[in-house]
Amino acid sequence: MSDLTIWTLDWVPEGPRGFVRDLRLRWACEEAGLAYQVRTIKFDDRATNHLDRQPFGQVPYLDDGAVKMFESGAALLHLAGKSEALMPADPVERAQVLQWTVSALNSIEMVTVPWWFLKMSGDADNKLTGWVAQRLDHLETVLAGREWLVADRFTVADLLMGDVLRVPAVRSFGKRPASEAYVARMTGRPAFEKAKADQLALFEAGDAKRMD
Amino acid sequence: MSDLTIWTLDWVPEGPRGFVRDLRLRWACEEAGLAYQVRTIKFDDRATNHLDRQPFGQVPYLDDGAVKMFESGAALLHLAGKSEALMPADPVERAQVLQWTVSALNSIEMVTVPWWFLKMSGDADNKLTGWVAQRLDHLETVLAGREWLVADRFTVADLLMGDVLRVPAVRSFGKRPASEAYVARMTGRPAFEKAKADQLALFEAGDAKRMD
Repeated sequence: MSDLTIWTLDWVPEGPRGFVRDLRLRWACEEAGLAYQVRTIKFDDRATNHLDRQPFGQVPYLDDGAVKMFESGAALLHLAGKSEALMPADPVERAQVLQWTVSALNSIEMVTVPWWFLKMSGDADNKLTGWVAQRLDHLETVLAGREWLVADRFTVADLLMGDVLRVPAVRSFGKRPASEAYVARMTGRPAFEKAKADQLALFEAGDAKRMD
Repeated sequence: MSDLTIWTLDWVPEGPRGFVRDLRLRWACEEAGLAYQVRTIKFDDRATNHLDRQPFGQVPYLDDGAVKMFESGAALLHLAGKSEALMPADPVERAQVLQWTVSALNSIEMVTVPWWFLKMSGDADNKLTGWVAQRLDHLETVLAGREWLVADRFTVADLLMGDVLRVPAVRSFGKRPASEAYVARMTGRPAFEKAKADQLALFEAGDAKRMD
């Protein structure tokens, strides 16, 4: 049994399958060759059944021996500290990885996730649209000039930025060829494909159990 | 001259004074006793005059010798690596600091900032309101049980969470006494008061120059 345990839900509806954020942690472990196991909590009482471990009632959370963490972005940085496959050793490059990881969380996702939420709530053309477009345009400029965010190689910052950008609503938002090519590079990685297939298999197994 | 340079704007209108995010970095340096200087870029052409340093056109950004970073959350974690005044040495506690720092950025600010943006755009009672309330309620439960987020002491996670929660629109959002007391503890710290006074003084000096 591995020390690393990724916790997620035992089932979700079709919509979020392939996007539940345990995928980020699975993907990181696959890239780094870190052994891990996946354990689940029940979907049905998810609002209250793990508040002791995740005070906002979300998943994933991570066990690494005495280290117990929530927030997928933080858990990714923690995992990145275990392997140069995810983060270079050079201190200047590490600072850049930290910067772009936070950028995915706080400059891109801070705008795209609420925009998507409003869109799903029926406000397709909402007041966040211009802000999203501006942020994605700036990022397109960055990605037009380089293949990876940091150090001419894949890092955990690309993993997270790729995961933020691959959401269908964000991808269909406008024509940004460099960002599209970047997403294709990230989602074409075998470690991503493995992580996604494993998540889908888990939720399909959940379907069968719910029909019992 | 110090190696640490915090970059911000040379002037902003009244509204954001005391809230421009260079304050976060000033505050961290003051807490840790790190020497720093502040340098400025021009407000008037801010959308384009520093895209080589901050691809989204925002401030602050930080110079630390060869390390050059944007994203205030990332720069805070970088500064925290320099001083136990900001982050304990214990690895389990460090993981918790990382977790709560990302939580401030991605669980709280990801909802409160777009909510505030919609409010400022005229949608006072917008579709993000329920989501903000839910997140702040969960955080209130956490803060009702402890004085600090990690390790029974101030860390950079409190600095950031305090800065996210002290925004007037967020504070007036609902009656949450533990969160209010927490904000009062953070903003009563001498390092915060020094950072805020210095930012206000900079922008007042900018007023005088603009009237020349």
